[in-house]
This record gives sequence, C-alpha cells and structure tokens, in this order.
Amino acid sequence: MIQPLNKDSVGIVTPQIMSFDAPLLLSCGKTLAAPYQIIYETYGNLNPQRNNAVLICHALSGNHHAAGYHSPEDKKPGWWDNCIGPGKAIDTQKFFVVSINNLGGCNGSTGPTSINPATNKPYGSSFPIVTVEDWVNSQARLADKLGINQWAAVVGGSLGGMQALQWAISYPERIRNCIAIAAAPKLSAQNIAFNEVARQAIISDPDFFGGEFQERGVIPKRGLMLARMVGHITYLSDDAMREKFGRDLKNEKLNYDFHNVEFQVESYLRYQGQEFSGRFDANTYLLMTKALDYFDPAAKHEGDLAATLNIAKAQFCLMSFTTDWRFSPARSKEIVDALVAAKKNVSYLEIDAPQGHDAFLMPIPRYLQAFSTYMQRITL
Amino acid sequence: MIQPLNKDSVGIVTPQIMSFDAPLLLSCGKTLAAPYQIIYETYGNLNPQRNNAVLICHALSGNHHAAGYHSPEDKKPGWWDNCIGPGKAIDTQKFFVVSINNLGGCNGSTGPTSINPATNKPYGSSFPIVTVEDWVNSQARLADKLGINQWAAVVGGSLGGMQALQWAISYPERIRNCIAIAAAPKLSAQNIAFNEVARQAIISDPDFFGGEFQERGVIPKRGLMLARMVGHITYLSDDAMREKFGRDLKNEKLNYDFHNVEFQVESYLRYQGQEFSGRFDANTYLLMTKALDYFDPAAKHEGDLAATLNIAKAQFCLMSFTTDWRFSPARSKEIVDALVAAKKNVSYLEIDAPQGHDAFLMPIPRYLQAFSTYMQRITL
Repeated sequence: MIQPLNKDSVGIVTPQIMSFDAPLLLSCGKTLAAPYQIIYETYGNLNPQRNNAVLICHALSGNHHAAGYHSPEDKKPGWWDNCIGPGKAIDTQKFFVVSINNLGGCNGSTGPTSINPATNKPYGSSFPIVTVEDWVNSQARLADKLGINQWAAVVGGSLGGMQALQWAISYPERIRNCIAIAAAPKLSAQNIAFNEVARQAIISDPDFFGGEFQERGVIPKRGLMLARMVGHITYLSDDAMREKFGRDLKNEKLNYDFHNVEFQVESYLRYQGQEFSGRFDANTYLLMTKALDYFDPAAKHEGDLAATLNIAKAQFCLMSFTTDWRFSPARSKEIVDALVAAKKNVSYLEIDAPQGHDAFLMPIPRYLQAFSTYMQRITL
Repeated sequence: MIQPLNKDSVGIVTPQIMSFDAPLLLSCGKTLAAPYQIIYETYGNLNPQRNNAVLICHALSGNHHAAGYHSPEDKKPGWWDNCIGPGKAIDTQKFFVVSINNLGGCNGSTGPTSINPATNKPYGSSFPIVTVEDWVNSQARLADKLGINQWAAVVGGSLGGMQALQWAISYPERIRNCIAIAAAPKLSAQNIAFNEVARQAIISDPDFFGGEFQERGVIPKRGLMLARMVGHITYLSDDAMREKFGRDLKNEKLNYDFHNVEFQVESYLRYQGQEFSGRFDANTYLLMTKALDYFDPAAKHEGDLAATLNIAKAQFCLMSFTTDWRFSPARSKEIVDALVAAKKNVSYLEIDAPQGHDAFLMPIPRYLQAFSTYMQRITL
C-alpha cells in the first residue's frame, strides 16, 4: 500500500505471488504438480499476536483484487471495495486482510492459462478439476506460509461463502468466524442447469478446440459471451432489471429486425458478455462452474448438513437478500437451520434489497451496518 | 378424423392447408407476398349456426397439431391433447376446434424455410418480422375462408394467450370468449433478456450464416440446442426441477471431468436441446422470440392496458400457476386488474401447481376442472 486515494480506501495495492513447492492432492484424485503459484493481495497489517487476519474468498468470476487500486490512474477499485477499507465493514485498521485468486483462476494463480511444468505448454483443458475443498486446502497452505495459524474470519459471498463454510468444516481450529453471504449449502438442479448451459455454450464454440484454444491463438468468445449473459440474468433480480431497463428502447422506435438491438436490456447484456469474453479464460469458467456444482459438504454425512457442521468451532454469520433468486434466503436458512440443529453460534440476517444476487457487492446501508457490527464485535 | 383411438381422443387427424392470394401487410411495414399458406387442423364439427368454433393459438415452439394422432403408429398425441377432445375441457362434441401453425413457423405454414416466390429460394433470414397482431390478422383471414364470422372462444397459453388477448382488442366483434392461460400483457426485461440469450446463441453459431444456412445444407444445431436449454429452464419451476432431478447423479459416482455428464439435470437438458435442434428451424425460433418481445398492446395507449382493453366485448377467462416464474400469477393479475378497471367480464383463477410455466400443458385436476366449467358455460 503506497498512499490512500481517499480516507476510506486501502489505496494503491500491489499483488504478491506465493510459490508452493509441494504438489497438492485434489478431490478428483489427481495431483496439482509443484511448483504452483497463488496470487494474493493484503490490506492492513498483521498484528504481533497474528490473530487479526481475515481471508476473503471470491466468487465465480472474482479474483484477488478485492479492494483499493492498482495505480493512481485506475478508475475502478477492487470488487469488494464497498466492504473493505479503513472504517468499512472489514476494517483494515483492525484487520489484516488477505485476498487470493483461487487455483484454476486466470488472474495470476496457477490455472489453465499457466504453463504445465510437465509439458512446457499451457495446461488448457488438462488442468485438473478443483473443488471448494481443494481451494480451502490451498488457502490453508498460504496461511501457513504467511504465518497465520488461525483466521479471525473467513469471509465470502456466493461461491466465496461456500469456501468460508468449508473452512469451518475442514479446519475447525483455524477459523474463529465464518461469514457466508448469499450462499447455499449446495446447488439446486436449476443452479446446475444454468451452469450447464454456460458450459455447453463454451464447449460448443468452434473456437474452444476442446480447451486447447490458447495454443491456436484464438478465444471462444461467443461461448464466453453467452455464458456471461445467462449468468448475468441470474445475478440480477427481475425487479432490478425492471427498475434498470424496463422495456426501454435502445433507439427512439422499434427497428423490427434482427440486426439492431431493440431494448436497452439486450444492449446491456451484449456489452456485459462481450466485455467478459475479452478478459476471462474459458477453461477457468468451466472449472469455477464445476466447483459450484460439486460443492455439497453434507454428502459425506448422507445429506445431513447438521452432522457435517457438527465439527465446526467457528461462530457463524449468514446474510441473504430478499430478491436473490440464484441463492435465495431459503438456501441460507437451510444452513442456519443446520447450524442451529448442531447447536452452533449463528447470526442470520435477511436484507431487504432489490438488486438480487449481486446485492452482496453493493453498498446497501443495512447490509453494511450489520456486516460492520458483526466484524467490530470480533475480539482480538 | 378417421377413428378414435380411445373415447376421449379426437383420433387420427389430417392437417389441412389454406392458401391465401392477397398479400398481408405486417406491423413492421413490410408485406408478406401472396400466395402464402397456413396449415391447420380441425377437431369436431362446425354447427349449422356456425357459432361453435374455437381457435387454438400456440406458444413459442408449438404448432397446429394440438390434439389426436397423425397415424395409428403415432405414439405422442398433439401438444394440448390433455385439454382437447370428446368430454375434455375443450369438448369436441360441443365445439369445432381450429388449430393453426402461425406464419413464420416451420411446420407447414409459410415461414423462413418456405420458398420465397420472388426469388425461388428459401426465405431464410429475409422472412419479415411477424407480430402477435399480424398473426391475429392472418387468423382472421383463415376464419373468413372457413366461414367463421365469430369465434365462440379464442384460447391459448403463454404466447398463445397473448394472441387470444390480441383477438379481443383487434376484432372485438369476432370473439365471444378470450381464454388466456399463463400469459402476460408484455414481456419483462428479464423475459427479453432470456430471449436475447437464445437469439445470440443462434446468431453466433458459425453454422447460422446470417440465417442463410438452409442454402448451405447446414443447421445451426449448437445455437438451437443452447436456446432450447435456456428456454427449458424457464419453463420449469425450481421446485419441479428439484422434484424431477434434485442432485441425482447420472452415474454411480462423480467423474470429475468435463466430458461426462455428472447430474441427471444436465443429461435431461442436453437431450432436450439436441432433440429440439433436429426438428425446429433457427429462423423461426428468432421470429417467435421477437414476436414475444414486441407484444405490448398497451403501448398504443401510452401503457394504459385498461384503455387498450376498453374496446373489447369478449368475456375473459385468465388462469395462472403458482410456480410459473416465466409469466407469474402477478403478470396475469396485471391483465385482470386492467379488465376490471375497464369494467369487463372476467374470471380469474390461480392454480396451485408445482410444474412452473409448463403447467398449462399438464393434466392438473383443478385446472382441467375450471377450464371445463368455463367452456361448458359458453352458450351456443
């Protein structure tokens, strides 16, 4: 951190890379060869007792850049800048925040675009399937290297919330607070169905070449665009779309053709899709959707989530948003009910918000206030 | 009709084709050249007073084959066989039922796969945009040819319900009962967004060739498959998917790869998509989604649906299904409220059903009973 741009920003941040020299055994049975790297950012300072570290876990298309700016010219801060910074919910004056890009990602951690040391070619489709459990194991190794024996909190929204939950199960001694926002204990059939459409869009793109597009110098842009478009619909609520676009026309009147965009919502979606297709790796997208599909910690206890969570020692904070139809409040309540059944300490808040699933990224006053209050009460 | 296969079936039916020799002026400003054809089926007999005719309007991927069988070997009856037949809701012992394939379709009516008389080549992408209003006008011409001055009822679900509504507005003297099931007065931004994903999937398929794929002897199968997959998700409720598939695995255990299907729901969606891509025309799919997007009868009255419906003389019957999230009960209620405000005669029923939007096709006892009761009370 060089200098804050404004008093509640963590300022300019520089990503760091940690290299690991022991292979990582994965849930799929394969091994991720060493050396592999994890890129991460930190905000705030680790205290002498080393008990103020907070891990931020990202969602489907997220990365390590959660707060601050990469340069003074940078116009957009990190993806969770609303929640991370001096005086914010995750207060960097109190906490040492670690934010990583997960393995399989495309923003600097070892993933499909990285060179496979065994072949000297990009991994491409040969990058092994990674699960939420695998990520948590890799994050634990990073914690070891950073000298963090126990997280004050592991925090995440959506797929990030699933990682926070998995931490409480995999490493009960190493997490004091688990904050899972807009999450679910496993995907529904509908969730999986949407992921499958996205995957088929990518896989069926002739420029995908079975995942080996990088070698051929092409990108399956059409598939990525479609995947992002369909994803985007599930991130926004019907209400939010109505409010944002309604049936507003792109031009003054209807064109009655297929070449022009008629409605603002079409234009918005195409833009989102195109922008995404230029910056995200197709193989990473497949991996992330698979990690979502496979997440089902209760499976090891015949579907009994309470039995699964019985091992946890953390305090839990769950939050959900009324109009979120991707992971609705009912899905968070499944987790809350299991925690209550397992006699765990759990706080739950359902927040009235029109923004749908994306609400967890937004500066919604009641959300930020509740989030802050919970984080402030964490004793160091 | 040759012979009934069982006593509540209309039996074996033979589609008929009506040719029209006057061009049809369309909402888009273009003209559909003559001659053009409409394929249709009829069930039951027109009475001497010619006042027992019922028009069936189909939804997005529907066609004229609504009831009965095309041959004794035919395993599947028409798409609305649950509701049409002797003693059924639309009782063919009472009514003369006419079911058509809309213009722009791909099942026998003039559409993109038909030969354009001006060029002697398939219309392909040059087939003009057709709207719900245009369809209703073309249906009125068919009624003229069949000697039907006034429909006892115009009936449809989803996009079919929109046509029924448009009939009450465009030809108030020619429709006595308007039955619109699982419909909406216009698409929401989210509805349009899903249609746009489907269209982009088709248009971006390299085998689409700007709509001129037929000349090249190819089919944009990938795009059609994706369009159908995403459509299918919106036809089923989250509940229905949970009940039908849950997280059931396709094989005994997880494969952890991209090549095999892991969950039953993926397998189901792929099958639906593939099957559809072999039987439906891509240009027709684009046209049908556009007709949905453009439907907004209240636009001519600055969005005032009650003012728009003021001209109607029909009695209205609206039905919706609790778990339908494509056109939810709230959307039917918008129509009901406007009809009440316009002091029209309207019956409305919200039916408890887990099946989502597809419920309008299903033999749900309360639905069939209410539908029958309404139809029985129509005086001839």
